[in-house]
Amino acid sequence: MDVISIFQYSLVYNAFSFSFATMAAAALFLWLGRSQVSANYKTAVTISGLVCAIAAYHYLRIFESWETAYVVKNGVVITSGFAFNDAYRYVDWLLTVPLLLIELVLVMRLTREETISKSVRLGFAAALMIALGYPGEIASDIPTRALWGTLSAIPFLYIVWELFSGLGASIDRQPESVRNLVKKARLLTFASWGFYPIVYMAPYANISGADAETAIQIGYTIADLVAKAAVGVLVWVIAVRKSEAEALTA
Amino acid sequence: MDVISIFQYSLVYNAFSFSFATMAAAALFLWLGRSQVSANYKTAVTISGLVCAIAAYHYLRIFESWETAYVVKNGVVITSGFAFNDAYRYVDWLLTVPLLLIELVLVMRLTREETISKSVRLGFAAALMIALGYPGEIASDIPTRALWGTLSAIPFLYIVWELFSGLGASIDRQPESVRNLVKKARLLTFASWGFYPIVYMAPYANISGADAETAIQIGYTIADLVAKAAVGVLVWVIAVRKSEAEALTA
Repeated sequence: MDVISIFQYSLVYNAFSFSFATMAAAALFLWLGRSQVSANYKTAVTISGLVCAIAAYHYLRIFESWETAYVVKNGVVITSGFAFNDAYRYVDWLLTVPLLLIELVLVMRLTREETISKSVRLGFAAALMIALGYPGEIASDIPTRALWGTLSAIPFLYIVWELFSGLGASIDRQPESVRNLVKKARLLTFASWGFYPIVYMAPYANISGADAETAIQIGYTIADLVAKAAVGVLVWVIAVRKSEAEALTA
Repeated sequence: MDVISIFQYSLVYNAFSFSFATMAAAALFLWLGRSQVSANYKTAVTISGLVCAIAAYHYLRIFESWETAYVVKNGVVITSGFAFNDAYRYVDWLLTVPLLLIELVLVMRLTREETISKSVRLGFAAALMIALGYPGEIASDIPTRALWGTLSAIPFLYIVWELFSGLGASIDRQPESVRNLVKKARLLTFASWGFYPIVYMAPYANISGADAETAIQIGYTIADLVAKAAVGVLVWVIAVRKSEAEALTA
């Protein structure tokens, strides 16, 4: 395996530390801000904070694993012989991606039946998407990666369809003051999620070794920050506005 | 002792990290959500969160013990000479299993006398079940394992009888909106608990060495996640619904 340049090593190292700090800060922001939303939205905000807290924990582990995988001394980077544990990402996603979809469903405040059925279906599809992606991520050859990536795309497309078609009708029933924000949260989720398959496919484009490793780590980190911290704060803003609107009409 | 494969080592390692994150997230979810239930159910939700927090602590210890027990370098796994400490599980169960039964009793909101007598009897039986199982878990031969496993089954069967017969009448007195959920919580407890003796008996089935170790660790981890995190969230849902129903009739 190519040993990466000191620039690439430091870039990834600092990005992991930045991501830990951002995720932990977002979790604290959301939990402190939980008292500012009405009872109807507390669970959505609790879960948005949990998603960021779980991600903060995993970025701490990823950071430590990256540090252990290389020895940097006198301006030279060599591998330490201890493998970098990429599985932390998938373990994180298995837990956070279903929760992310559930926070979106909860902030919409559908009927109890709709909330339960959409949470179960979206949560299950999300877990399946992550589980199918992992064998491809650790595969050493492109055809295997492409096979699992394609299988993983099936539940992904189902989720996109559900977000745009299934939830579309419910979005039109949202109060006017938040309708655009809910659409933005959905778009931000979709755009950041669209980033993951692009990163996943980086090795297809004949990028390999240290360049591929750096591109994958930085790419996933940016996507995680948008999908979890930015979407989480947006869910909180929606919850605050809906709480205000409902207090006026009550 | 067989040294396990790198796939088995990583599977168990990542499962322990996943379990720590899930238990810690569930504890935070329950403690934050404690404000959403009425005074009658706050203790049940506090204890449900404690069970998950205690489990999170032990999974962190188990994770570290697993990491210390092996040296993984350049893709090869060797034992380090430091033993993996299986006792953490039993120490955890000794504390969490009586609490798990108490959270189920508390969320049912029986009379004060019934609550105390059922908590004492179920809690004592649970502690006895765990204490009797441990000598078998560390035994190196099957007959000793089977002997203690059988002794441990006596309080286990008493708990099952108490859950289905003793608590059965009380469940029929629950409000209709939660009766099915209480039955589900009881069934989930029973199903996840039924998993432990199966894992315990894995060595009987001539599975040994690395395969048995991996099966036992993954099996206990899944059972713990269901019995603690999933049952805990279900107890919270029951508490929220009962609080709502009681607010309406008050």
